[in-house]
Amino acid sequence: MKDLLNLLTPKDALELLKNNFAIPLKAVEVELSQAFGKILAKPVQAQENIPPFSRSTVDGYAVFAQDTFGATETFPVLLELNGEIGMGEVPEFSLGPGEAVRIFTGGALPQGADSVVMVEHTELFDSMTVSVLRPVAPGENVIAAGEDFKEGETVLAKGTKIRAQELGVLAALGYNKVTVYNPLKVGIISTGDELVPVETKLKPGQIRDTNAYLLVGRILDLGMQPVYFGIVPDNFAELTHTLSHALAETDVVLLSGGTSMGVKDMVVDAINSLGAPGVLFHGLAIKPGKPTIGGGVAGKPVLGLPGHPASALMVFERLGVPFLRYLSGLKSSFDTRVKAVLTVNLPSKTGQEDLYRVALTFSESQYLATPILGKSGLINTLTRADGYVIVPLDIEGLHAGEEVEVILF
Amino acid sequence: MKDLLNLLTPKDALELLKNNFAIPLKAVEVELSQAFGKILAKPVQAQENIPPFSRSTVDGYAVFAQDTFGATETFPVLLELNGEIGMGEVPEFSLGPGEAVRIFTGGALPQGADSVVMVEHTELFDSMTVSVLRPVAPGENVIAAGEDFKEGETVLAKGTKIRAQELGVLAALGYNKVTVYNPLKVGIISTGDELVPVETKLKPGQIRDTNAYLLVGRILDLGMQPVYFGIVPDNFAELTHTLSHALAETDVVLLSGGTSMGVKDMVVDAINSLGAPGVLFHGLAIKPGKPTIGGGVAGKPVLGLPGHPASALMVFERLGVPFLRYLSGLKSSFDTRVKAVLTVNLPSKTGQEDLYRVALTFSESQYLATPILGKSGLINTLTRADGYVIVPLDIEGLHAGEEVEVILF
Repeated sequence: MKDLLNLLTPKDALELLKNNFAIPLKAVEVELSQAFGKILAKPVQAQENIPPFSRSTVDGYAVFAQDTFGATETFPVLLELNGEIGMGEVPEFSLGPGEAVRIFTGGALPQGADSVVMVEHTELFDSMTVSVLRPVAPGENVIAAGEDFKEGETVLAKGTKIRAQELGVLAALGYNKVTVYNPLKVGIISTGDELVPVETKLKPGQIRDTNAYLLVGRILDLGMQPVYFGIVPDNFAELTHTLSHALAETDVVLLSGGTSMGVKDMVVDAINSLGAPGVLFHGLAIKPGKPTIGGGVAGKPVLGLPGHPASALMVFERLGVPFLRYLSGLKSSFDTRVKAVLTVNLPSKTGQEDLYRVALTFSESQYLATPILGKSGLINTLTRADGYVIVPLDIEGLHAGEEVEVILF
Repeated sequence: MKDLLNLLTPKDALELLKNNFAIPLKAVEVELSQAFGKILAKPVQAQENIPPFSRSTVDGYAVFAQDTFGATETFPVLLELNGEIGMGEVPEFSLGPGEAVRIFTGGALPQGADSVVMVEHTELFDSMTVSVLRPVAPGENVIAAGEDFKEGETVLAKGTKIRAQELGVLAALGYNKVTVYNPLKVGIISTGDELVPVETKLKPGQIRDTNAYLLVGRILDLGMQPVYFGIVPDNFAELTHTLSHALAETDVVLLSGGTSMGVKDMVVDAINSLGAPGVLFHGLAIKPGKPTIGGGVAGKPVLGLPGHPASALMVFERLGVPFLRYLSGLKSSFDTRVKAVLTVNLPSKTGQEDLYRVALTFSESQYLATPILGKSGLINTLTRADGYVIVPLDIEGLHAGEEVEVILF
């Protein structure tokens, strides 16, 4: 167990990986309709003022605000009607002093108008004249030219993930194409003599390859591209061959398994055999997940995860997710966390982060977090957890009734 | 404004829609690797015991627990070594009394063994004999046959969304194909004379179709299939034609816009003209989002959203998302909510739900929620919000310093 004596914290392991690896990301131009979930490779600027011309936000009459000053229901101001501006119509005339123009929500203000009186605050005096019953201030009920976006302004930063809202803004700005990063290609290798493909009828001692699907799902969820390289038995030549192939085809490789007695150092040896920097750490100060391996070859990182599915998932969440997000060019992100009250004590050793998967239930006005217990080899616990709680390194445990943050899966 | 007098709460509107519509969902069998994000159309049972045979969770010696009772470091129990079980190997012999078998993590226990002594708690006495230094209890360090999943047990319910964890469990259960619902097809129509396609150079009074992309993004995010039917001008015949076409091609239709003066009732008339039940409500007791329309034709629902993007988004979140989830066959779901402290007062009228979009910042140990203010026609506010706060119907407002729940986008 010599390699495990010097355990890294997840934070230090993440820094070590970040300092050693940065994937050169390829930028591609895609149709806006294909951009959802991708990451902007260039900042996005407004190409023009939006709106390009001042626009009414209500149905009413475009006016020069000063003409309405002093208007009341008892002493309305009478303005001369100078036509109507239809939707999508260019007003080809100017507003003269003492004039008003009928306008609808979204309509472009004519030259000379600086505000709009809502129709509810007017009365038609006769077919040529409108009574204004309340004054408006300059700019009232108007979105001025450039008020939404100023020409040249940077609206979305490089590294922004395109959600629905960003798609809408890109549409408003007139971008029907957008430059994004190619999604990160993540290789997945499962190792272990005991592993068999999903469709296999199990013989004693065999287990179906659960980790590959678990990791495929999480990688799809992150908007990245999983590439599965199959199951490799506990054989150094085969492992090295598959790892080398995966490194050539993808940006980063996740290995799982191969940490059992006898084959424990095979993953380490395989990584080291392929080139520098090789293995950077072997052993994380977390539970579950201690036998995690981090390193890489020729600029491409390799993460070695434990074989038990629940352990592999927790290491992936704690170390893999932030590292892959960093590699993907994402500028910033935050995990979704909810506060919840623990229903039982969570013991922990100091000097080690304990990760507890929990199920959430809602009771009265708060969430309750109940840890999912069970032997670490069990798979049935996977679907029962909504998220997990971290008991930090320097804490001896958390008590029932304490409020904790649950990081949602 | 006669139709708006009787405003429905979002809850009542949702119930009304649910009571009137249920889409007949088509179930399809897909490869497991294509099942991520889809919804199970049938419950999933374990087809066999998992594990099928008892399995060791540690490296050590398989024993009959009773043989180890009383063992201590001073007075170890000596057991006769009866070979070794390799990974993935079927033990074709039984364990006799007073015997031990070398076994590794994941190995299948031979007949007669009921527990495993960890290798750390043993010493090799000679090549034929092992000293056991601590007793084990029956079942210790073993996952019994069927302990993870019992044959015939329902593991995943119909209506479960397949996350990474469910993919992993399906793999463990040996399902390489799975029966899921076809994703809901959601039609999108944008209406308004002022709307132009994204690539258009804007003329006065024109605005690019932002809502379509906003809705496409949200629908993709929900794992559904958006189908865009383009922009329809404020023309009854064209609107009716496009709506009828969209209803024929999709499961549910989202219309946005067409609520401005003069054309206000065109959407209502178009829905009513196509058949029963027609419009079920016109007007929601929420702000923004009051002029929302709900109804449908011949078993297919239509939601009419406001034209302003920020308003359309809020109505979609508050009413559209839960309704679409219901239609999609999803059994249960919960919005992701975080607790945050308000930085300013949020005023509200009683009798109406006020929805405030907020930006979250993290300060010391808590999130702070600051409302995104700005005229309702502005689009630039869209990307600045992380979520929204609901001020309930019967509350006059919320105060700065209060803890609120922010529903994340």
